[in-house]
Parts: sequence; C-alpha cells; structure tokens
Amino acid sequence: MDRANQQTVGDYLYESLYKEGIRDVFGVPGDYNFALLDTLERTDSLRFIHNRNELNAGYAADGYARLHGISALITTFGVGELSAANAIAGANCENIPIIHIVGAPDYDKQEKGLHVHHTLMNGDFHVFKRMFTEISAYSTVVTPSNAKTEVEKAIQMAKDYQKPVYIMVADDHVNELVTEKDGEGIVPFETDKETFAQAMRHIEKKVSDSKKPILLVDTKVKSFELEQLIQKVTESLRIPVASMVYGKGSVDESSDQYIGMYAGNFGSHEVRDRVEHADCVIGVGLVWADTNTANYTASLRKEQLIDIQPHYVRVEHATYENVKASDVLKEVGTLETSIDTVASPITFPYATALETEDKALRASNYYPILQDFIQEEDIVIVETGTFFYGMSQARMKKGVSYLKQGGWQSIGFATAATFGASIAEPNRRTLLFTGDGSMQLTVQEISSMLYYDCKPIIFVLNNAGYTIERYLNTETKEQVYNDIPTWNYSSLLEGFGGGAKHVKAKTTAELQHVLRQVEKDDCLCVVEIIVDDPMDAPDYVKQIRAFKKEE
Amino acid sequence: MDRANQQTVGDYLYESLYKEGIRDVFGVPGDYNFALLDTLERTDSLRFIHNRNELNAGYAADGYARLHGISALITTFGVGELSAANAIAGANCENIPIIHIVGAPDYDKQEKGLHVHHTLMNGDFHVFKRMFTEISAYSTVVTPSNAKTEVEKAIQMAKDYQKPVYIMVADDHVNELVTEKDGEGIVPFETDKETFAQAMRHIEKKVSDSKKPILLVDTKVKSFELEQLIQKVTESLRIPVASMVYGKGSVDESSDQYIGMYAGNFGSHEVRDRVEHADCVIGVGLVWADTNTANYTASLRKEQLIDIQPHYVRVEHATYENVKASDVLKEVGTLETSIDTVASPITFPYATALETEDKALRASNYYPILQDFIQEEDIVIVETGTFFYGMSQARMKKGVSYLKQGGWQSIGFATAATFGASIAEPNRRTLLFTGDGSMQLTVQEISSMLYYDCKPIIFVLNNAGYTIERYLNTETKEQVYNDIPTWNYSSLLEGFGGGAKHVKAKTTAELQHVLRQVEKDDCLCVVEIIVDDPMDAPDYVKQIRAFKKEE
Ligand SMILES: Cc1ncc(C[n+]2csc(CCOP(=O)(O)OP(=O)(O)O)c2C)c(N)n1
Ligand SMILES: Cc1ncc(C[n+]2csc(CCOP(=O)(O)OP(=O)(O)O)c2C)c(N)n1
Repeated sequence: MDRANQQTVGDYLYESLYKEGIRDVFGVPGDYNFALLDTLERTDSLRFIHNRNELNAGYAADGYARLHGISALITTFGVGELSAANAIAGANCENIPIIHIVGAPDYDKQEKGLHVHHTLMNGDFHVFKRMFTEISAYSTVVTPSNAKTEVEKAIQMAKDYQKPVYIMVADDHVNELVTEKDGEGIVPFETDKETFAQAMRHIEKKVSDSKKPILLVDTKVKSFELEQLIQKVTESLRIPVASMVYGKGSVDESSDQYIGMYAGNFGSHEVRDRVEHADCVIGVGLVWADTNTANYTASLRKEQLIDIQPHYVRVEHATYENVKASDVLKEVGTLETSIDTVASPITFPYATALETEDKALRASNYYPILQDFIQEEDIVIVETGTFFYGMSQARMKKGVSYLKQGGWQSIGFATAATFGASIAEPNRRTLLFTGDGSMQLTVQEISSMLYYDCKPIIFVLNNAGYTIERYLNTETKEQVYNDIPTWNYSSLLEGFGGGAKHVKAKTTAELQHVLRQVEKDDCLCVVEIIVDDPMDAPDYVKQIRAFKKEE
Repeated sequence: MDRANQQTVGDYLYESLYKEGIRDVFGVPGDYNFALLDTLERTDSLRFIHNRNELNAGYAADGYARLHGISALITTFGVGELSAANAIAGANCENIPIIHIVGAPDYDKQEKGLHVHHTLMNGDFHVFKRMFTEISAYSTVVTPSNAKTEVEKAIQMAKDYQKPVYIMVADDHVNELVTEKDGEGIVPFETDKETFAQAMRHIEKKVSDSKKPILLVDTKVKSFELEQLIQKVTESLRIPVASMVYGKGSVDESSDQYIGMYAGNFGSHEVRDRVEHADCVIGVGLVWADTNTANYTASLRKEQLIDIQPHYVRVEHATYENVKASDVLKEVGTLETSIDTVASPITFPYATALETEDKALRASNYYPILQDFIQEEDIVIVETGTFFYGMSQARMKKGVSYLKQGGWQSIGFATAATFGASIAEPNRRTLLFTGDGSMQLTVQEISSMLYYDCKPIIFVLNNAGYTIERYLNTETKEQVYNDIPTWNYSSLLEGFGGGAKHVKAKTTAELQHVLRQVEKDDCLCVVEIIVDDPMDAPDYVKQIRAFKKEE
C-alpha cells in the first residue's frame, strides 16, 4: 500500500469533522485520549476547547451544534464519557448532532481483558458503549481497518437523524495508519419517489381546498435546518405562521405573518383560536409533548393536519413513510392557496409600553424590558425554569438565534451551552437567561468563558430558589428542598478569573439603567434580576399551576 | 385488607433505608420526585440533603456510604439520573452500595407512552433503566404490588455485592398503599458448607507449611467491611501486613505489624522484597489493576497465594466458589503459624524529620508535613492526581478513615465525597487533599458544605494544571490542554456563601504556620499549597513516568 497517501486514524477522523464545518472540538483531557488530543493540537484547522468538566463539555458542544449544525466532543473512557451522558441524551431528545469521540484503553489491553483504571474491573470494555447505544443514533468502535466506513457512517447517521453518535477509539489506534482502502460508501437517507408523489397529491388537494390554512412550526424545523424553507413557504403561500413553544426560534418572529405562540390553554387565546379554527394546519416538525402542548390542552384534529416530519408526512389519516421534510416543503412552497379572510392583527403578550414609574421588579414589568433589550442578530439562550415559559412569549427581532432545551429541560444546560455558542459565534452578542437555581449546577463554565475571552451577558433571575418547582408541586406547602444557598456573583466572577462585571437590579428603573450600562461594556457581565416575591412568575407559569391543581 | 397496617410505597421504602442505618438521603429535586421528597420531608428519621447537582449528589452518597456502609440517592427521571451515571459506575467499580432511587413520570403516562419532558420523546420509559442495569447490581421498577419483594431484593443485592442498585418509582405510586402482602423473602448470599470445609483444609495446610507468611490487604476489605476480621487475623497470627495502593485505609497503619504499601517497582523496595519472597501471601480482596500494581510490576505467583475474595477463595491453583470472605477470615484467625524469622523493622517513606529550614514547597518536604498533620480518627479523602500516589505512601495514625477512588479515579469525586463524609460524621475532622485541576469539576459542592455547616479542611495543590497528566503523557512536550484557568479561592468561598477561610503557603515554614492556624479555626478552610515547579511530584509519580517512557 502507498504509505504516502495514507492517513492515521486520528488525522482521518479530524479531516472528516472539518469537512462537516466543525472548527472547535470540546472536551476534557484524560490519559486515554492523549493521542486524540496530541493529534488535535497538531491539526491547525481545528481547535481544542477545554471545558471544566465533561457534562459542561457536552452542553457546550450542544450549544455549538445549534449554531453550526453539528459539533464534536472528546471524553476519556468511563469517567469522562459517563459524565457527559445527560448532555448526550439531551442532544438525542432535542435532535442535536454531536460526534462524541471516546478515547479508550490500548487495544491489546482490551483484548487481554485487563483490569485497568476507569473500567468496572471486569474486563468488559463495551459496557459504556452499550449504555450510549441507548441514547445515540449510532455507536461504533473505530479501528485502522474500518475507519473510513465507520467514521463516514457515524457522521451520516448523525446528520440523517440529527442525533448524537458515539465513536470509541483505542488510544494506540489513533496514530496508526488507516488500512481500509475505501469506505463502504454510505447512502444518506432519501425520499421514496412514489410515496412522495402520492403524498404531494394529497397535500395539494388539502391545501387548495382550504380557506383558512396556517403554518405551525416546531422544534424539528430548527434541528433539521428547515428554517429557510419555512421562510420561503411563508412568503409564497402568504399564510399566517404560529409556533409551538419548543419551536421557538425556528421562524422569523418579526415578520407580519407571524402570529405568535400556540400553547393551548396557557398561551394567547387569540393564537389558540386561529390555530384550532384553521381548516388546514401545515405542521412542521411537531413534537406532541406535555410541556409543548400546555399539558395536552393544545389539540389538533387529524382532519386539520398536514403533519410534516423529518422522515415522513401524515396527511389527515394517511401516513407516507420515507419522505423527507425538505422535499415536501420545497413542493409546498409552489402550491396555490385561496385564503378568504384577512385576519385581524394579533396582540403580542409583552407589547405593552415599558414601565416608566420606578417599580419593584416582577414578571409583568421585566419581560417587556428584556424583550426590548434583545436586538437583531443576538444569540438568546434560555434555561429551563420560569424564564423558559416567560421568554417563550417574548417576540424576537429578526435574525435572533433562540436556543433552549424544549423537551429535555435539564437545568445547568444553558450556562454551558452559552459557552459553546460564544465559541461558535464570537462576533455575535450572546445573552443567557437563567435562574439562580439552574446556575448552580454548571457555574464553573463561566471560568471557561473568561479563559477563552467570551463576553456574554448573563441574566440571573434571583427569586431565592426553584420557583418553577414551587409552582409545579401543588401537593404540599413547605418545600424546603426548593431552597438554595445564596450566592454572591461578584465574588464568583473574581474567583473564576476576574475581568468580568456583576450588576444588580431590584426595580424597573435600576434594570433599565444597568442595561444601558452593560450594553456598552466590553466584558462578560452578570445582570442579577432580584425580585422581592419568590413566587413572582410569568402568567404562563401561573396557568400551569392552576391546571395542575385541577388535575 | 387491613388499611391500618398498610404503608405507602414511599413510607415502606424509607423505613427499609432506615433499617439499614441510613439517616441522610442525597439528591436534587425535580418534578418527578416531588412525592418522594414530600414523603421524605415528613419522615422524621431521615433527612434530605440537597446537592448542587446530581453528579455531586452521587459522589456525596458514595462518600457517605464509605463511612456508613450504605447510602441513598434520589434523582429525577432522565436529566437527574443520567447526570449521576459516572458516580454510580464509580460506586460499581469501587464496591460501594448506593440505593439510587429515581422518581419517574406517573404510571398512566408511562402506560400510554406519552411524550413527556425528560424522555427521549419516543414513549420508551425504560431506556435509562436499561443503561443503569449495566452499572448496577440490580435494577427494578417498584410498584404498590411488588414493593416488598423488590425493595428487599434491591437492598440485599446492594449488600451482597457491595454495589449500587437502581430503583425506579412512578411519582404517583409513591403515595399509594403497598398492596403486596409479604415479600418473597430474599436469601442473602451464603457460604456453601462443603466447599468451605475443603477450602479451609487447603488453607490450613498452606499456612502451617509456611515459614514466612504475610497478609496483603486490598480495596475490597473495606467495601466488604472486613477490617475488624483483618485486625483479628493480624493479632492472632502475628504476621506482617502489607497493603495494596487501592487497599489503603483498610488496615491499621500504626500497628507494629504493618509494613507498608506493596506497589511493585514504584513503591518501597523493602516491602516488595518481603511480599514477593513470602512463601504464603494471604491476599484479601485483591484487585489486580494497572494503577494498583504499579503497571503490573507487582506480581505474585499462584503458588504463593491464598486469594480471599468476597464470594470465593483461590488457594494456589484451586478455586472454591461460593465461599464468603468473612467466613474464611474467621477461620483463618484460629490457625497456627510457625514463623521462623523476626523481620527487621521497615523504613516508611515520609519518616524523615520535618524540614526546619524555610524552603520552597516540593513533594519531598510537604508530604512529611501533611503526614504529621493528620491525627488519629481523622477522615482523610484523597483525590485522583499526584496526591493519590503521594498520599498512598503516607503512614496513617490509628482510627483514620482513608477515602479515595482506587480503580475508578474520576476527578472531582473527592470534593463532593468530602461533603458526603462530613454529613455522615459531623463530629470527626475531615481533610480533603485535592488538586487545582480536579477541584474545578465539582467546586460548587463547597457551597453545600457551607450551607450545611460542614467544616472540612481542604488542601488544594496548586501546581498550575493537570500535573499527573503531564507525567503520564510521555509522547509529546507541549500539552496546552493540561493547563487550566487560575482560580482565586478566597473569592470563590465568599461567592459560595462565605464564613470560610482561605490560606496559602509557598514555603515549608508558611505551610507549618498556616497548619497551626487552621487547626484552631472553627470553619471550613481551604489551604492552598503552591509549588513553584509545575512538574514537582512525589517519587512514585516519577517512577510511573520512567516506566511509561520505557513501555
Ligand atoms: C439536571 C436537572 N435536575 C433537576 C431538574 C428539575 N428542575 C427543573 S426546573 C428546576 C428549578 C429551576 O430553578 P431556577 O433556575 O432558579 O429557575 P426559576 O424557576 O426559579 O426561575 C429544577 C430543580 C432538572 N430539570 N434538571
Ligand atoms: C472525570 C474525569 N475526567 C478526566 C480525568 C483524567 N484526569 C486524571 S487526573 C487529571 C488531572 C488532575 O489534576 P490535578 O487535580 O490538578 O492534580 P495534579 O496531578 O496536578 O496534582 C485528569 C484530567 C479523570 N480522571 N476523571
């Protein structure tokens, strides 16, 4: 074989990541990934980003992928990879493709079944791989003799299903030359032509029969990168667009056609009426989950619905398998509609004038202020907690990237994802909205932000604990477990490296004042929003509680 | 059925934990464990300890179990449990029984296969259970109709195998009455009498033939609570005792019969000679792992060895299955020996006089100082890193509890385990020895310590990064990935709640001075040991590197 044309397993792997647009690889070192990291250090086109722990690294990779389309994560065997399990399961739930590469013990040690550190001391080197198989679209052990096929396959599966994949590679295989000549050649997921034709005939009839069609977008629009097609469909069909809560960020909310969030009984009644009375709902990437449907109070009849999913479409009662959403949307963009009503303009939840009197901060007055503060092209990252629901109702300006975990809702995610987002898009302004409770789980990633000179603006809602949990538990009164230690963010920022700023606001005037300040600051800023009532919460959260109480 | 005699599933579960000696339950709240936590709050005999995140909670539970014999952990479905996966796998590797209780979505939601938050949105509610089955001795879903059998079985398995077990319970089942009348009745693991008799005949012959027997203890002595039996065997047989590195803490190191650590080529040559030339090595709970055997340079011949394991014993070439270590040790304590040599006394590594001149801190001078500082009955917790090897060579005084992860070696463990240990034994002095690198992974647990008024002394070795990793990677020179951000611990302590103290030492005199101070302080103290050479390390670590270079 011609040695000159050959690459090592490590080089081949990194070249493959590079081809997908990956420029930064997140992770934490360990002695089983030395060869991976040494190769990475030599690879000029990729940068290793060192996180404070592996869970945070997984979250950061997730945040990066939400902006770059795909990302990579390197952990060490056992201790490292398992620390990231929650982040990988989250990426699975949320349809985020992360290439998770695990550096494993030398191959001969595995062959011999040695009891080495970071194993269960039972000679089984596939335990953790089996665990990850449960939460990955694909999992594999890459070796010199299968590298081409397996790396290609893993990446293709990550893209086809927009889910994480798992690649284990023995430390001593990384520097070996790839011996496999050509990969098997992986066929990406493709639309079945005949099914597609029939589906489109059905869709066309449904759309042309309809007088009051509406487009309803959800989370998979974003993960399957359908935003531009949605934009085109909206423009050509000239129909109103609503979004589900998980779908926030997949449609241009500044557009005239955007009518707001559809969230059953908890959200805007105007939007609910329009969606539920539409005679044709073109749903794209819908996930019918409890926290997306206002506890299933959102409800669509099959007769109304064209349910466009990544790999199939259901029209009324007919399911057409093996049909790609992108192909369907391209065609839908060319259809004719016959809308007969010009809908009256809609009122948006925070469209009230900003508070001019100086008042204690509460959801009713700070959300409009925050909505106003968010600018075009900002990256907005929202944590699970009261902010998740409150911010879902804020109207975003053009070009805003809106990141959150809809279905997985793991607290701590947003802080570390903010680091990943800042690495992905260093030139855009990044805003994090998190709670004092959630902040505590992954706070050390602020140190990574400072280390890598990231300058997000971090809003921490100080409401003295887990407020959302106090709302969700309607059974008992005293829930001391929802209390948390009080933190001093100025000191923490200093402790994590310094050069950052912490400001607080207790009133509307203070908040408006500090926002004018931080807008000018060229450093990482923590803006602490202090509310005087720990049970203060946006209307949406109050609706959830009322519903739970009745349940 | 007689309602008055019945208990709810939650009450039954907690009563079972209480019977095992558990008094504190670690965890993080989530909406799927509300019923579990509400019941716990009502249970006066148990206390809920709220951690800053679930990985830390798992580690804390591990630390608690190392002192109390067993512990419990509550997490919420998906996001919570998976965050703790690394801690559970660690407890599996290290033989620590943790009862991991996961609050799951309501049973009817599971039955219907609803897509609810914290799932993979595929209707599968057993994905995470399957993952934990890989790393638990037992896993089960507890319901009103199986609670007695299943809780009993889970706890018995945890005790028989000294490993974590997994209990999933639907939130709405917690408050339901147990309908199962009697549990199936679980038979604990028991010794097979005939095998035992034959094994003992073999052992007796081996011991009585021997002129130079030695006792060699390892990690499973502690996890299977064999310390007292070991103590008795030592006293009655009057033979020398050595320990493996993982076994540190399972034998009284202040005893005259204790000769030190057996660590092949990296440790004391005197100890190696004595162990390897013994004509009968009574090994107890040995784990023949890379980092326990100085990369397999430690080596025993089968002909020498009586290999007493928790559930079997091997004498020379014969394996006797289903024989409990405790039964074997009881009998061994009654045997006669005919030792013919009085061994010369041994030199211990840090038995040098303390530095009197004021010198920059280095391993050669600070280890003796630290050894001297550790008092009888202290709890000593040592993190993976250079401290792991360096401290393994320090001689502990009587009654010291020594906690570390031998085989799993997950960094960040020790900080959170220190919290668990402080909760388990509030009246004993707790000392943590960790590195600046490891500290960063789980640092927020210091806030829990402050919140619960724990006052450990925390030694942080500031050697500007991952020094052990710099030693282990012999392939490359520049390893920027082994650098870390510099932290200011004074500010961090303030940020996490305050009321704590941070002192630094750069020289031997400074260290001795601050140690005299902190000895008197009644608060959590961080003692930062600053070395001027980032490559300073104990001799043991230098030996590892030399070995790796030759490999
Ligand atoms: C990893 C993880 N652990 C626990 C939970 C359960 N949980 C959901 S929201 C929440 C509290 C969030 O509190 P905070 O961030 O202060 O926001 P608030 O609701 O007070 O605005 C908790 C504990 C979770 N979602 N993820
Ligand atoms: C969770 C986890 N991630 C990564 C590793 C790999 N690892 C082992 S030791 C170590 C560095 C420890 O550095 P430090 O705590 O500063 O101790 P030092 O060796 O410098 O004394 C790392 C990253 C690990 N063991 N566990």
